[in-house]
Amino acid sequence: MNTVPDGLPEAEQRLYAQIVGEDPMPRRRAIAKTITLLESTRPEHRLRADELLNALLPHTGRSLRLGISGVPGVGKSTFIETLGMHLIGQGHRVAVLAIDPSSTVSGGSILGDKTRMEQLSVHESAFIRPSPSSGTLGGVAERTRESMLVCEAAGYDVVIVETVGVGQSETAVHGMTDMFCLLQLPNAGDDLQAIKKGVMELADLVVINKADIDVNAATRARAQITSALRLFGHHGNPEHAHHDENLWHPQVIQISALKSTGVDDFWRTVSQYREVQTRSGRLAARRRAQDEAWMWERIDAGLKARFRAHPAVRDQLAGLSSEVRAGRVAASVAARRLLDLFN
Amino acid sequence: MNTVPDGLPEAEQRLYAQIVGEDPMPRRRAIAKTITLLESTRPEHRLRADELLNALLPHTGRSLRLGISGVPGVGKSTFIETLGMHLIGQGHRVAVLAIDPSSTVSGGSILGDKTRMEQLSVHESAFIRPSPSSGTLGGVAERTRESMLVCEAAGYDVVIVETVGVGQSETAVHGMTDMFCLLQLPNAGDDLQAIKKGVMELADLVVINKADIDVNAATRARAQITSALRLFGHHGNPEHAHHDENLWHPQVIQISALKSTGVDDFWRTVSQYREVQTRSGRLAARRRAQDEAWMWERIDAGLKARFRAHPAVRDQLAGLSSEVRAGRVAASVAARRLLDLFN
Repeated sequence: MNTVPDGLPEAEQRLYAQIVGEDPMPRRRAIAKTITLLESTRPEHRLRADELLNALLPHTGRSLRLGISGVPGVGKSTFIETLGMHLIGQGHRVAVLAIDPSSTVSGGSILGDKTRMEQLSVHESAFIRPSPSSGTLGGVAERTRESMLVCEAAGYDVVIVETVGVGQSETAVHGMTDMFCLLQLPNAGDDLQAIKKGVMELADLVVINKADIDVNAATRARAQITSALRLFGHHGNPEHAHHDENLWHPQVIQISALKSTGVDDFWRTVSQYREVQTRSGRLAARRRAQDEAWMWERIDAGLKARFRAHPAVRDQLAGLSSEVRAGRVAASVAARRLLDLFN
Repeated sequence: MNTVPDGLPEAEQRLYAQIVGEDPMPRRRAIAKTITLLESTRPEHRLRADELLNALLPHTGRSLRLGISGVPGVGKSTFIETLGMHLIGQGHRVAVLAIDPSSTVSGGSILGDKTRMEQLSVHESAFIRPSPSSGTLGGVAERTRESMLVCEAAGYDVVIVETVGVGQSETAVHGMTDMFCLLQLPNAGDDLQAIKKGVMELADLVVINKADIDVNAATRARAQITSALRLFGHHGNPEHAHHDENLWHPQVIQISALKSTGVDDFWRTVSQYREVQTRSGRLAARRRAQDEAWMWERIDAGLKARFRAHPAVRDQLAGLSSEVRAGRVAASVAARRLLDLFN
């Protein structure tokens, strides 16, 4: 299993051996170096990273991939710190990655910041990496997705991917995890509305955090969200949905991360989800579908980048776009004209 | 305004003049012929259709574009028949188009079938066209979108685009209309769950049809859906959402299409929506965004079709896809390899 695959260059051979090896300190350094290689914009780095990634791939897939989202202030860091330490206490190894779309603008990521997870960040059984901070959301998501594979190859059996409630990044995290958890505050009124359209229905589990602040509000919020998830969150075959015991119904639980109450409950629910999804084959199917969707997402992004960079297209794109916006050329006609220029 | 634009071939000149003209019988025939031209798969037809479409474009944009969706059995046809006759009675001209994704499989469309709308289908002020019945959903949606423009140029001031509750076609209809209405049955339990994930939150208006069957159930359903829409349906700037009087909040109303009660209410709500959205500039902004998104949707589809047809890609695609599904090649690596083959 741990024999270094043939044909890998020497530097990557060393990284490979350290990542799949048993020694924790060189392992963490090797993961960090590999992720830096993945994040490099130099084409030769990209090629080396691809070879290393494929060599590591047989060692991946054995973790639980957990997406955690919620608006700023909901207490994600404290929750992940508490959960992470709880899991390490049970013998797990925990990796925390992040996708922060704002970091691609500011150039610096606040998410995954080690200073926010004081105990976890220094623990030998944890690996914390902030969000990649440049590129498109697709590019950032790609590097996080690949970092997740590296962490899995290194034996982290719980990989948490954290993001903030703004819509597109949630879709990206949902597309790379086994379970998508949304953290909410107990006040069911205005603050719940701060989640973007399309985010709540991605949730496999909604966690009402800081539930001890207002127990009645948390109970009301739980009832409301449960009812709404029932109306909105349905997928799969509608005829079998409420008979199939192998189907997971999105759940809503209450916790208080600060007082460490409910983290047990949370993990029990996650484990139950994992069991139901594994037994029904949905976990494996979800991963296969994610891999295929991801391949096509990257192909689409690559095709569109080439299209935009094509000289004849570049000459006409802005002009035709504004003709379309002004209602002087039909959108489908503009698309056909631009496609004719691209060859 | 009605001068025939320069450079249009003779046959299209005639169609143009009939479409924007005042004579109802040749107008309806010309619309039907133009739509047939749009639906043709012959490239020279497509070019002629494009020229005609661009010539008609200055006459478009003055209708209200209304999307109507709901699962089979909810009473869409009866509702559209009642609504259409009501609007014609008020002096409107009504076009009914359809997107039926099942028709691309069966080759025949049940939606938009004239026999289901007995009075409307024979009325001089109405135009009914079933769903295009071949091609991808994207292609079907494109032809419906273009047919809508032709109807607008012909002076139909209410264009209804009908579809059935299966998810992807709803997104397509939402992407070409000013207002998306979802029809529901009053039993808020199991039947509501038959809507696919992601459809309810597209709704600008939910209509509980056949509300007279069970008044209590309809009232409960209305309360549940209203609450759920509040939790899930939010978009725009969350900080201003509940202060901005110019913002439309999705509404839920009850009607009985069979007994013709509530169609007044329905149209009043639609008119109110139109006023709010026009005043705030959101109607115009939605159309601009739709046009631009549509152009890119067609470009993406075109690029992907070329990619799949490329000989070197075609050779490798199936093999690499199965390597990705089997977990032997990382999705991003496969995407890069395939993109390298495409040139």
